[in-house]
Amino acid sequence: MFFKVFLKNCTLICYQRQRDLSKLSKYGTLFTAGFSLFSTSKSSIDTSSFMAEPISSVEYLAKNKDDMKIKVELMILRVQAEFCKALEKEEESGAKFVVDKWQRKEGGGGITCIMQDGKVFEKAGVNISVISGMLPPAAIARMRSQGKKLSDGELPFFAAGVSSVIHPKNPLIPTIHFNYRYFEVRDGDTVHWWFGGGTDLTPYYLNVADAVHFHTVLKDTLDKHDKQYYPKFKKWCDEYFYIPHRYETRGVGGIFFDDLDTPSQESCFKFVTDCADAVKYSYIPLVQRHKHATYSKQEREWQLLRRGRYVEFNLIYDRGTKFGLLTPGARYESILMSLPLKARWEYMHQPGKDTPEGELLEVLKNPREWVKE
Amino acid sequence: MFFKVFLKNCTLICYQRQRDLSKLSKYGTLFTAGFSLFSTSKSSIDTSSFMAEPISSVEYLAKNKDDMKIKVELMILRVQAEFCKALEKEEESGAKFVVDKWQRKEGGGGITCIMQDGKVFEKAGVNISVISGMLPPAAIARMRSQGKKLSDGELPFFAAGVSSVIHPKNPLIPTIHFNYRYFEVRDGDTVHWWFGGGTDLTPYYLNVADAVHFHTVLKDTLDKHDKQYYPKFKKWCDEYFYIPHRYETRGVGGIFFDDLDTPSQESCFKFVTDCADAVKYSYIPLVQRHKHATYSKQEREWQLLRRGRYVEFNLIYDRGTKFGLLTPGARYESILMSLPLKARWEYMHQPGKDTPEGELLEVLKNPREWVKE
Repeated sequence: MFFKVFLKNCTLICYQRQRDLSKLSKYGTLFTAGFSLFSTSKSSIDTSSFMAEPISSVEYLAKNKDDMKIKVELMILRVQAEFCKALEKEEESGAKFVVDKWQRKEGGGGITCIMQDGKVFEKAGVNISVISGMLPPAAIARMRSQGKKLSDGELPFFAAGVSSVIHPKNPLIPTIHFNYRYFEVRDGDTVHWWFGGGTDLTPYYLNVADAVHFHTVLKDTLDKHDKQYYPKFKKWCDEYFYIPHRYETRGVGGIFFDDLDTPSQESCFKFVTDCADAVKYSYIPLVQRHKHATYSKQEREWQLLRRGRYVEFNLIYDRGTKFGLLTPGARYESILMSLPLKARWEYMHQPGKDTPEGELLEVLKNPREWVKE
Repeated sequence: MFFKVFLKNCTLICYQRQRDLSKLSKYGTLFTAGFSLFSTSKSSIDTSSFMAEPISSVEYLAKNKDDMKIKVELMILRVQAEFCKALEKEEESGAKFVVDKWQRKEGGGGITCIMQDGKVFEKAGVNISVISGMLPPAAIARMRSQGKKLSDGELPFFAAGVSSVIHPKNPLIPTIHFNYRYFEVRDGDTVHWWFGGGTDLTPYYLNVADAVHFHTVLKDTLDKHDKQYYPKFKKWCDEYFYIPHRYETRGVGGIFFDDLDTPSQESCFKFVTDCADAVKYSYIPLVQRHKHATYSKQEREWQLLRRGRYVEFNLIYDRGTKFGLLTPGARYESILMSLPLKARWEYMHQPGKDTPEGELLEVLKNPREWVKE
């Protein structure tokens, strides 16, 4: 795998024309040579289970273990690897995730893991990024308008997160998306910080047992932290993943939250960690339930039509995609990994009310409560 | 065909829940009964060659023949019908355009013609709309920021246009898009008016002869009106149909212009009419050249990948699509008819420089001059 990572880093060099090529090439060589060395001798941080070497140096990670930035970086590295491995276990073609480690000229970088054209997973992406730099005045103005008490001008920031979209081939397995992130802005002596994230499910055919299982895992996870969280974040999710021009939600929802900074940094971190760890329990059983089910050409075409709606949401409304693509020098391949391998648009496609397709639409137009109190 | 139109109007009733159903139903009946009647006896306007009955009543059209709003409506009705018929002549499956006539609650309506899953044309849409109503303050503020001298508050407006996107099945035939429109805003006693539009080509494989033919037809058409137009509008097109996050244009360009209001209303109308009439001469020969060419699975997959880029442009950057979808009560099916039947996204797909796919990318990254002075 190390060699594959190195090769992919070399490939990266061809694409990222704006980057410092000699630096990247050197980095690639150092990286392949140094990974196992660091893992075994130079620190107390065991990186051997990660998909690639951490973004920060292992020495820096080991020295600053109690810093929230480091705790989040190590958590997302672990979550990425565990989720990728859980998916690889379900994939039946023997396909593995291809790993791309990339650097950001302005500070930090990321690890993008992609599996494409598998037997079970048509396109699966699990991405982490750990970036830092100066937040431009426009971004600060936006944050102030959303209630953050920040000074004018540029301010140093740090952002780290894991995000993932899994598009299975079988239309009876839903698509899942999750994203958990930590943000810091330094304003003079004050460090403003907050967490955000969410997990949501996009089925192609309504399976009530699946939706109930998915929401139950989320509710159980959230209830351990605060009984108010699940109803609040479930509603927020239905509102956020909404396609206004079609008057429908993207899927059967899940949870979504932002600006979480209470009751304490440590409790927020534990909460977000639990949410990220719950993803595999909420989703893998659904993959196992349906991956051997047969499906018709018509079911596959309906799945591709719904994937067109997924594209519409992500490209028109999703704030992450929008602001990501508008950021100069953004790594668009990692941002757009959320798009399906295939999508379809038919003019005026409208399934009958009493069909399985119509049944799904009914739920998308009228979000349900899946778990009773 | 009249029956088909009526049937489609009935279908429309099921979709457009917000509309006055009884009115539409009555309208549908009147429409089928009255079309040929009006065409032959009640006016001097011959509507028999149009795809459907005009948006305005035939009596109103006949009475106001010299009003620019009417001249534009009749022109786009004619252009729509001629282009649809020219395409039907090239289609080899016998498929015909399906015609949807729709009304807008706030004023006006449109005719959407779609051909889907043909042998030559995978998805072809030719839409006209003639709408009027009150322009909201936000839209007026935007127009003022773009240099229009308009009063504050709401103002009455009229907009009419034809727009079309043709996605052929064979990857050797390019996709074409065109749009020609007329706009009026009444501010007290003053009527502000302007024309806009453009025609542009999106090939999947570079064929220099095709690009030269296409641009030559455009240049010849524009040169008859003003020798400055082609260089100016060709550059505007390259700048407008640009996908910034991929650092590439959508295709090999064409022409694009907006806010055209000189030297006179009549000359602008003649210019836009000539542009719209030139579309078939610029495009149909390319369809004829390539529609029987064989192609490989790999060429088809590259076409679908490029169609993914088309979707990215239309959903993220195209002003028409964006503002259209954000307008409450917008007819999204007509706006999104521009999307291809199928599209594809692969992570990090990058063709080699010396391949036919790489040759296209090179031109998209470095727009060329196709016609010498």
